[in-house]
Amino acid sequence: MIIYKSNGSWFGHVFHLTSSYTMRRVVRAVLLLGVYSALVIGGIRILNLHRYLQVDSTVFSLLAVILSIFLGFRTTTAYDRWWEARKQWGALVNNCRNLAIYVDSMWPPADLAIRRFMAKSIANFCLALAEHLRQGTRLEQLVDLSEEEVGYYTTKDHVPNFIALRIYQRIAAAHREGTISEGDYLNIKAQHQSLLDILGACERIKKTPIPFSYAVYLKVFVTAYAVLLPFGLSEQFGWGTVPLTMLIAFALLGVELMGEEIEDPFGRDCNDLPTGDIAHTIKRNVFEILEDRTPAAEQRQEEYDKVF
Amino acid sequence: MIIYKSNGSWFGHVFHLTSSYTMRRVVRAVLLLGVYSALVIGGIRILNLHRYLQVDSTVFSLLAVILSIFLGFRTTTAYDRWWEARKQWGALVNNCRNLAIYVDSMWPPADLAIRRFMAKSIANFCLALAEHLRQGTRLEQLVDLSEEEVGYYTTKDHVPNFIALRIYQRIAAAHREGTISEGDYLNIKAQHQSLLDILGACERIKKTPIPFSYAVYLKVFVTAYAVLLPFGLSEQFGWGTVPLTMLIAFALLGVELMGEEIEDPFGRDCNDLPTGDIAHTIKRNVFEILEDRTPAAEQRQEEYDKVF
Amino acid sequence: MIIYKSNGSWFGHVFHLTSSYTMRRVVRAVLLLGVYSALVIGGIRILNLHRYLQVDSTVFSLLAVILSIFLGFRTTTAYDRWWEARKQWGALVNNCRNLAIYVDSMWPPADLAIRRFMAKSIANFCLALAEHLRQGTRLEQLVDLSEEEVGYYTTKDHVPNFIALRIYQRIAAAHREGTISEGDYLNIKAQHQSLLDILGACERIKKTPIPFSYAVYLKVFVTAYAVLLPFGLSEQFGWGTVPLTMLIAFALLGVELMGEEIEDPFGRDCNDLPTGDIAHTIKRNVFEILEDRTPAAEQRQEEYDKVF
Amino acid sequence: MIIYKSNGSWFGHVFHLTSSYTMRRVVRAVLLLGVYSALVIGGIRILNLHRYLQVDSTVFSLLAVILSIFLGFRTTTAYDRWWEARKQWGALVNNCRNLAIYVDSMWPPADLAIRRFMAKSIANFCLALAEHLRQGTRLEQLVDLSEEEVGYYTTKDHVPNFIALRIYQRIAAAHREGTISEGDYLNIKAQHQSLLDILGACERIKKTPIPFSYAVYLKVFVTAYAVLLPFGLSEQFGWGTVPLTMLIAFALLGVELMGEEIEDPFGRDCNDLPTGDIAHTIKRNVFEILEDRTPAAEQRQEEYDKVF
Amino acid sequence: MIIYKSNGSWFGHVFHLTSSYTMRRVVRAVLLLGVYSALVIGGIRILNLHRYLQVDSTVFSLLAVILSIFLGFRTTTAYDRWWEARKQWGALVNNCRNLAIYVDSMWPPADLAIRRFMAKSIANFCLALAEHLRQGTRLEQLVDLSEEEVGYYTTKDHVPNFIALRIYQRIAAAHREGTISEGDYLNIKAQHQSLLDILGACERIKKTPIPFSYAVYLKVFVTAYAVLLPFGLSEQFGWGTVPLTMLIAFALLGVELMGEEIEDPFGRDCNDLPTGDIAHTIKRNVFEILEDRTPAAEQRQEEYDKVF
Repeated sequence: MIIYKSNGSWFGHVFHLTSSYTMRRVVRAVLLLGVYSALVIGGIRILNLHRYLQVDSTVFSLLAVILSIFLGFRTTTAYDRWWEARKQWGALVNNCRNLAIYVDSMWPPADLAIRRFMAKSIANFCLALAEHLRQGTRLEQLVDLSEEEVGYYTTKDHVPNFIALRIYQRIAAAHREGTISEGDYLNIKAQHQSLLDILGACERIKKTPIPFSYAVYLKVFVTAYAVLLPFGLSEQFGWGTVPLTMLIAFALLGVELMGEEIEDPFGRDCNDLPTGDIAHTIKRNVFEILEDRTPAAEQRQEEYDKVF
Repeated sequence: MIIYKSNGSWFGHVFHLTSSYTMRRVVRAVLLLGVYSALVIGGIRILNLHRYLQVDSTVFSLLAVILSIFLGFRTTTAYDRWWEARKQWGALVNNCRNLAIYVDSMWPPADLAIRRFMAKSIANFCLALAEHLRQGTRLEQLVDLSEEEVGYYTTKDHVPNFIALRIYQRIAAAHREGTISEGDYLNIKAQHQSLLDILGACERIKKTPIPFSYAVYLKVFVTAYAVLLPFGLSEQFGWGTVPLTMLIAFALLGVELMGEEIEDPFGRDCNDLPTGDIAHTIKRNVFEILEDRTPAAEQRQEEYDKVF
Repeated sequence: MIIYKSNGSWFGHVFHLTSSYTMRRVVRAVLLLGVYSALVIGGIRILNLHRYLQVDSTVFSLLAVILSIFLGFRTTTAYDRWWEARKQWGALVNNCRNLAIYVDSMWPPADLAIRRFMAKSIANFCLALAEHLRQGTRLEQLVDLSEEEVGYYTTKDHVPNFIALRIYQRIAAAHREGTISEGDYLNIKAQHQSLLDILGACERIKKTPIPFSYAVYLKVFVTAYAVLLPFGLSEQFGWGTVPLTMLIAFALLGVELMGEEIEDPFGRDCNDLPTGDIAHTIKRNVFEILEDRTPAAEQRQEEYDKVF
Repeated sequence: MIIYKSNGSWFGHVFHLTSSYTMRRVVRAVLLLGVYSALVIGGIRILNLHRYLQVDSTVFSLLAVILSIFLGFRTTTAYDRWWEARKQWGALVNNCRNLAIYVDSMWPPADLAIRRFMAKSIANFCLALAEHLRQGTRLEQLVDLSEEEVGYYTTKDHVPNFIALRIYQRIAAAHREGTISEGDYLNIKAQHQSLLDILGACERIKKTPIPFSYAVYLKVFVTAYAVLLPFGLSEQFGWGTVPLTMLIAFALLGVELMGEEIEDPFGRDCNDLPTGDIAHTIKRNVFEILEDRTPAAEQRQEEYDKVF
Repeated sequence: MIIYKSNGSWFGHVFHLTSSYTMRRVVRAVLLLGVYSALVIGGIRILNLHRYLQVDSTVFSLLAVILSIFLGFRTTTAYDRWWEARKQWGALVNNCRNLAIYVDSMWPPADLAIRRFMAKSIANFCLALAEHLRQGTRLEQLVDLSEEEVGYYTTKDHVPNFIALRIYQRIAAAHREGTISEGDYLNIKAQHQSLLDILGACERIKKTPIPFSYAVYLKVFVTAYAVLLPFGLSEQFGWGTVPLTMLIAFALLGVELMGEEIEDPFGRDCNDLPTGDIAHTIKRNVFEILEDRTPAAEQRQEEYDKVF
């Protein structure tokens, strides 16, 4: 992930052109099309094919407008997906903070075990989720797991699911034992429930690309358009066709490739969400809320050295 | 359903053109229009009708822009519907997982019967829903039904409805008997309620196509446009009219046909949602949560062989 | 309401052109404009006014693009309204099913009176709502009303309101008497509340057309445009102006008239929602859930003959 | 507020052109621009400046398309605001009806005082809100205030806030005294809470115009465009420039002025929401539900004469 | 923040052009481009390069339409963000008012300490949040902090988080001690929870700019477009190219720069939300509700002098 400032200088942005993976792909495709259109123009000139070419730029203008409307659709849907993913991770932050505050207020201050258990479980849920949305959870990235827990989670396919299960078991047990009251039990459930809701929403975004037909349709259309473009412009613009083809291709290809890149926002590209960072922020917040003012504070320092 | 990767290579996509049912329909219509426009051009040339044709391509550009704005509307609404259906099935996953976690935490660990009942009922609700949205639920696709249940559901029109009814009856009975507390009862209701909410939302999407007038309007417009197009282009582009007509028709027809195809997302086309797969995933998750650590684990293996 | 299939054949749709009320209105207006533009062209030719006409088609292209953007706005808002109305009725289905399931689980199985009361009240709420959104509720369309109820509702202006009131009175009374528990009372309230929420949302959609200025603006603009169009095209296209004017008018008028038609979705046009059918479906579902397995089943048959 | 029917005749609407305040503003600006462009054309002809004017209509077409895209943005955001305001007032209707139904069911039938208090307080909240969103609440428009209440509210800046406070105080007191049960208390809170939520949403809509830069930007752009337009068209269209300028100005100015007008929907223009009427409808509904079947019915008649 | 009236006169707005920071940036860039295009035209004339320039304005029209579609996307997303931020702060107002009303009704009237604590804590949460979204909370801007609190918050990174924690601790303690009932506890939790939800949503808006690739793409495109524009227009418009380039640049640059400016709505620009003012309004409302009618009223006057 590249850290960048949105409100920075204009040219700073322009010169970052090649630091984005998607932008590099776009630039490569645009250069390729430049070579192709130069070959077309050269071929037409050498073979003297002018009189067979009646296509002019009007039709290409028209098609480009239609294309751009559907590329606008593509952009909007890809962005919506990205923004929804961001909202889910934002909600995860809120939820975990609230959950920590409720745990802290509901259990008696002397109960350090539940604070430790909740702090690490909430943190682990977020850390596991971030990796689960990439190549799958690796247990060594979770914090403060006991032997028993490592053994338990190793047998599970879907680690975040079972972390959530364990959190709820503790809550339900405390309710049965009377440690937390009926009201506490009702209040804390909303926060717990949304852990899995957020998990499910992220899985949905990850696993559902744009419908197959749209993906094929757009690429067939853009390919046909780019292949025919130099023929359409050659009569009118001569060698000027080459830069024009490249500029138009930049406009159209860029959008399609950016849409493709952005619709899976959980990876490690420069456009992806910093889900790992967010998970670590949650970890820090949750431990701060739940262990800061307890007798466990002394031993915490050393223990966290290997964690943060 | 074709499994495909969104982030794959560009040309991989382009060559999949004919593996999509909708794309094949589009290609067929485009070829037909190509033949038609060749006949028109030939007729004009042979009969020497040039002087009667004053229509030029400007007006067709204009109309195509208007058309594309409304095709954009068509695309957006069809996609929204598809995406909402996906959201509902995503919510179903979350709900069923949460429901299973709550059942597991609320009932005493020794109560294997309720775990078995809930696991199979939740799974059956999802399996029944997937088929209900296609040609109707078939009871042989549900898992682990008793004789009594088969008899009961056979008399019902709307199977998922009555599965939900039975789930709630068990919850309400447990509440009356005091097995689960007031707080449990309140907590678990939200998850149960959204089973029927999701069911209803999917039925709504399935049963409500785009308003009749819009469907007719768009098809009349596209038909009139395509029929007139070769006359409009013939003067300017000669035989070049044929490929141009086909390209424009590809742009316009493709969108309308894709919109039609995608607005019912519960079938078995390549664009449809994998609702059957999702239902089976839920089944697996729910059984994992509810039976994994119970004495029933031994007998489970054999029983599931015929299930999964 | 015409029953039609969205995924049917293309030409089936095209030939339905005149079976839609709105489409007939559009076709009529388009034919009128055809006659008008023929008169204009004839007048210009006979009176030899060519040299006074300098307007060409460029400006009309421009204006049509602007117009189509605002007609796109019109279409989107009208459709959103229609779709929201459909969502509300879909939510009504879910709610009523859930309400019936809760009533069935919460009250003791022996209490047939409450089941009958709730089944008929929920059904009547929906039937009354469907008519309330048309010309007003007529009591003879409701099912199974007692003498007392007919007398009571006759004095009320807003029947659905008071059906909802009576449903809640029974729930609150059962809660006070201890027939249903605190948890039941809390759980069932959400479903009751949304009865009135849905009612209110439908009233809002019905009573709030697009702002007055927009309606006037669009019609003034479209009228001015259509009146001037033949003058703008006459020079370039001669008699070809007539079909072109008609095609463009079809594009523009169709959208405005469809928007107008669709923004009140509660009537009996072919585009309107089948609210009456939905209400009857709810009636059937609710009676099935609440009376199917009770001793009242025998007498039900005869009683329903006059109802369904 | 002008009462009008959306589905009325086309020309009825067109002739209402001048009955809308905004439309009159638009017409005035359009006429002014007509005079201006006539002066420009005259000046160019008299001073013979043709050879210095090379601008043609292509660039103006382009700019108008760009402009119309942003005017489309303007329209959509202004309309969304208006529609959200309508939704809030619709939700207020639902809420107040529900609140009245709950009050009626929760308190013992003999308690006429609470029914009277709640009926008048809910009605006053709505009446006060409607005026609060205009020039501020005037106490003489509220119904049935006691001496004490007049004194109390006179000292307050934000009357609706304190009406809501008083409603909640009564609910909380009844809960403390045990008049209403725990379940009643939880159930009624949602309705009370949304009173202030609706109030806050309306204040937000009222107090937040479109960002300053956008407002300035659009007006600068439209002004520059309109000033230059006659120069751009003069060469090609001669005196035809005058009507064309006026038609294009109608399209562009109309949208901006309508957007401005509609984004504050709480005034008394023809496009504004009938908030006063809605408040009075709520008053009628609430009094009907809460006092209709009580001994207070006799004295009500006379008392309401001065109220409704 | 400039206070301005949306419904003011048209020219008032136009002349405010330079009072907006963003508008000044736009004007500067437009002037620069004017100089640049004058140099280009001059260079072409002097060096007589006309015959090498075949690019005409058609292609630039096309590209500008594509650009404007994506600038429309940019505008919409930036505005949505700004509007969502406004909604969150509106919700904060509602929440705090509701919270104050509940505190006032739930605690016994004699308990002045809790009223003072809640009033100052709610107010401080809002004041801290406003600054937290700028350069970070400064404790001296909070009201009525005790020595202990200053010490406590000084050690914390995320002050609003811990204010919310302390509020909940008091609520939970009151619930444990039996000062507030179960129902009160459940009712007040929703308001507390949304404090952190609002905080999280604002942080999300602040920290997530538009995806990197989009930002780069738009700027590269706009830059390339602006650099090539004078070459494209020079043939056709001569020196008229200069104002035309400036007008088009105004349209395109303005949108990009406004989008950039508006997507972080928490600063102190003229377009930013008046978060500080809103926080102070909340403070005033909350103190009015919670202390107005208590014996603490006398001492309040003097104490607030240094506060408001």
